[in-house]
Amino acid sequence: MNAPITKSSTQKTNLVDEITTLGIQARQAARTLVTASSQAKAKALRAMARHLEQDKAILQAENAKDLDAARKSGLAPAMIDRLTLSDKSLKTMIAGLLQIAGMPDPVGSMTASTTRPNGMRVGQMRVPIGVIGIIYESRPNVTIDAAALCLKSGNATILRGGSEAFHSNHALGAIIQAGLADADLPAHAVQVVGTTDRNAVGLLATLTDYIDVIIPRGGKGLIERLSSEARVPLLKHLEGNCHVYIDAAADIDKAHNVTVNAKTYRYGICGAMETLLVHQDIAARILPRLAKTLLDKGVELRGCARTRALIPQALAATDEDWATEYLGPILAIRVVDNIDEAMDHIARWGSGHTESIITENLSAATRFQREVDSSSVYINLPTCFADGFEYGLGAEIGISTNRLHARGPVGLEGLTTLKWVLTGDGQLRG
Amino acid sequence: MNAPITKSSTQKTNLVDEITTLGIQARQAARTLVTASSQAKAKALRAMARHLEQDKAILQAENAKDLDAARKSGLAPAMIDRLTLSDKSLKTMIAGLLQIAGMPDPVGSMTASTTRPNGMRVGQMRVPIGVIGIIYESRPNVTIDAAALCLKSGNATILRGGSEAFHSNHALGAIIQAGLADADLPAHAVQVVGTTDRNAVGLLATLTDYIDVIIPRGGKGLIERLSSEARVPLLKHLEGNCHVYIDAAADIDKAHNVTVNAKTYRYGICGAMETLLVHQDIAARILPRLAKTLLDKGVELRGCARTRALIPQALAATDEDWATEYLGPILAIRVVDNIDEAMDHIARWGSGHTESIITENLSAATRFQREVDSSSVYINLPTCFADGFEYGLGAEIGISTNRLHARGPVGLEGLTTLKWVLTGDGQLRG
Repeated sequence: MNAPITKSSTQKTNLVDEITTLGIQARQAARTLVTASSQAKAKALRAMARHLEQDKAILQAENAKDLDAARKSGLAPAMIDRLTLSDKSLKTMIAGLLQIAGMPDPVGSMTASTTRPNGMRVGQMRVPIGVIGIIYESRPNVTIDAAALCLKSGNATILRGGSEAFHSNHALGAIIQAGLADADLPAHAVQVVGTTDRNAVGLLATLTDYIDVIIPRGGKGLIERLSSEARVPLLKHLEGNCHVYIDAAADIDKAHNVTVNAKTYRYGICGAMETLLVHQDIAARILPRLAKTLLDKGVELRGCARTRALIPQALAATDEDWATEYLGPILAIRVVDNIDEAMDHIARWGSGHTESIITENLSAATRFQREVDSSSVYINLPTCFADGFEYGLGAEIGISTNRLHARGPVGLEGLTTLKWVLTGDGQLRG
Repeated sequence: MNAPITKSSTQKTNLVDEITTLGIQARQAARTLVTASSQAKAKALRAMARHLEQDKAILQAENAKDLDAARKSGLAPAMIDRLTLSDKSLKTMIAGLLQIAGMPDPVGSMTASTTRPNGMRVGQMRVPIGVIGIIYESRPNVTIDAAALCLKSGNATILRGGSEAFHSNHALGAIIQAGLADADLPAHAVQVVGTTDRNAVGLLATLTDYIDVIIPRGGKGLIERLSSEARVPLLKHLEGNCHVYIDAAADIDKAHNVTVNAKTYRYGICGAMETLLVHQDIAARILPRLAKTLLDKGVELRGCARTRALIPQALAATDEDWATEYLGPILAIRVVDNIDEAMDHIARWGSGHTESIITENLSAATRFQREVDSSSVYINLPTCFADGFEYGLGAEIGISTNRLHARGPVGLEGLTTLKWVLTGDGQLRG
């Protein structure tokens, strides 16, 4: 079995060679994975789960090295939290592996086919994308989650985690290798980049011959840097500046409960509501009650003039507020004349992630769902439902804000592509 | 009604401003197009067809200016041919408009939806991509074809044709405007770039805020230039280095006829076979007969040593031949030991466009179709079928060699994307 990482950067080998070698090996592995059986892939995932359980002590010892270094370098407590491989986070990773192992294999499924006038049959077959690069920050659980989803969908994966998680990711890489070996799958199906050299990220992003798509999982800084450097297509997740619009015909209780849930379910998720838009005809009936609940929960309110006339505690909102993804206990509120003004606001300030209308009026609901140009558009639901598991995808590699290929939560299907398959019996053209 | 082109480059306005303005206007028009009715879009397309017919004389007079200039600058006859708006090419454009007008509108169609355990319904709605940039070379018919497909699928379009077709494209732009106006659709739904400044292409390709995808239609040079400059995603068509593999279990007549058709239907199309792979067990029975037919048709043959032992007229093929898309009357031939060697050859040298196996053996056919990683994989059919019309797509904007979003012939559906639509009744998360 080949080692997953061929060279250590301390050997002073050329970084370009090192990264290119990973790409060549991944491309070779991808050819084998196209035809890997569903059983073999599931076996590998279950074996990884078993090794995670068995090697828990080793893993946590390696993780402790990263945590030590992180504390010494003064990493923020939230980051240290994400870096920690606790018993609980290991259990979640094991459960994730077993869940993905049990999901239906998307590879090889066929769309409905048609028969052309000359008798040839035309259909499409779902196939892996090929080689996927995952670039992520300090969370080592991504190493397992991303590798599992990519393997299940038949893709070879190159994983580049944050340098803070170096020892943890290396140990997790060994567990992945053990799982692949147990199922006789190629070792290069999943490769963890060995070097901590930051230039490796830029190199991966330009390796168009060997990497088909890069999925960055991290903050805005990472995505913006990659967007300007990458030649490989990105499946990226930018901001979630999500809106709820309470229509004139909303049910007051529903509007109250959905809005509170959209804001307070979890402040830090991309589906959290950041701006509330309220129809002028219902504002006086809903806003004071809503304000009380949100203020009691410690949410700071910022509003337009009409909002502040109804909620004296609200600070004045500026354009900056309409543009901001707070990811915290702050909510911007704007009273609008009608649904058109609400949709104009969303078109101007939104990030195209997830928006929701609260209404009992069918034509308002239909217009909103058709016209709002976001990856997810809801009726009478809180925006915090933006999650692959909630959509029934089983698991997600992320939430795409791309317009091409996959939009919104991306599950196994989003990691595949369709090729045309035509079957004939010697038909000729022309 | 606003003019489609706001400023002429002769006014020395800043090119960046000019191109950015086109983008802003396209984005605004795209919002209107999302909800444009199928009737309105079809009406505009039929009106364009009518105006094309009525203004034929004006169009051909404008076209004559381009042809004059082209002849004076010594443009190659093949290029001049493509540039010519003959009666026949105008008829084809009119027929294309009417055909696209009559096709089903992909926008607004819904996938099957599921109901989650909490009762909320989850589905996906087909929506336009948004703003599409088309960058093409001298063929003015692309102006009409591309505008029609993009409009039908609800996208705003920015068209940038070759400077050789400046007058033709300008005149065609006026016809498009007249059609849009007849159907009360926004003038900026289709904009023809006014300036002939070559820097406009590079600027369009970096306008990520306003252009969602660029479709280059032209030669390798254009695509390569764009690939290195673009920040906007490209739906691109690289080479079609297509293979036919004659398996040991092929029917000799079928193999002969399909192979001849694949090479000679038209030499210059991307689906033309460029390399023939033949199983060693059948080579002696098929190659001499095939060689006779192809040589009679004036095709030059280049082969491996085993091929040349059977076809004395064949020149020696080098690695360069395996890599080349001839787009002409030349064929490379290689005898292989078995299907694995054939698929290895394709994986190494192919461009992932279209490949075909000729066989009566089910397991060979199944393996080939599953394992060959091309956008189209055929059984017992010539590769020259690679065309959206042949696949039943009605019309195509091009053939994509991308792995993401759309692979192979791209019709109306490939110009759309799916957004998630969720409908609930006040369900909450957590």
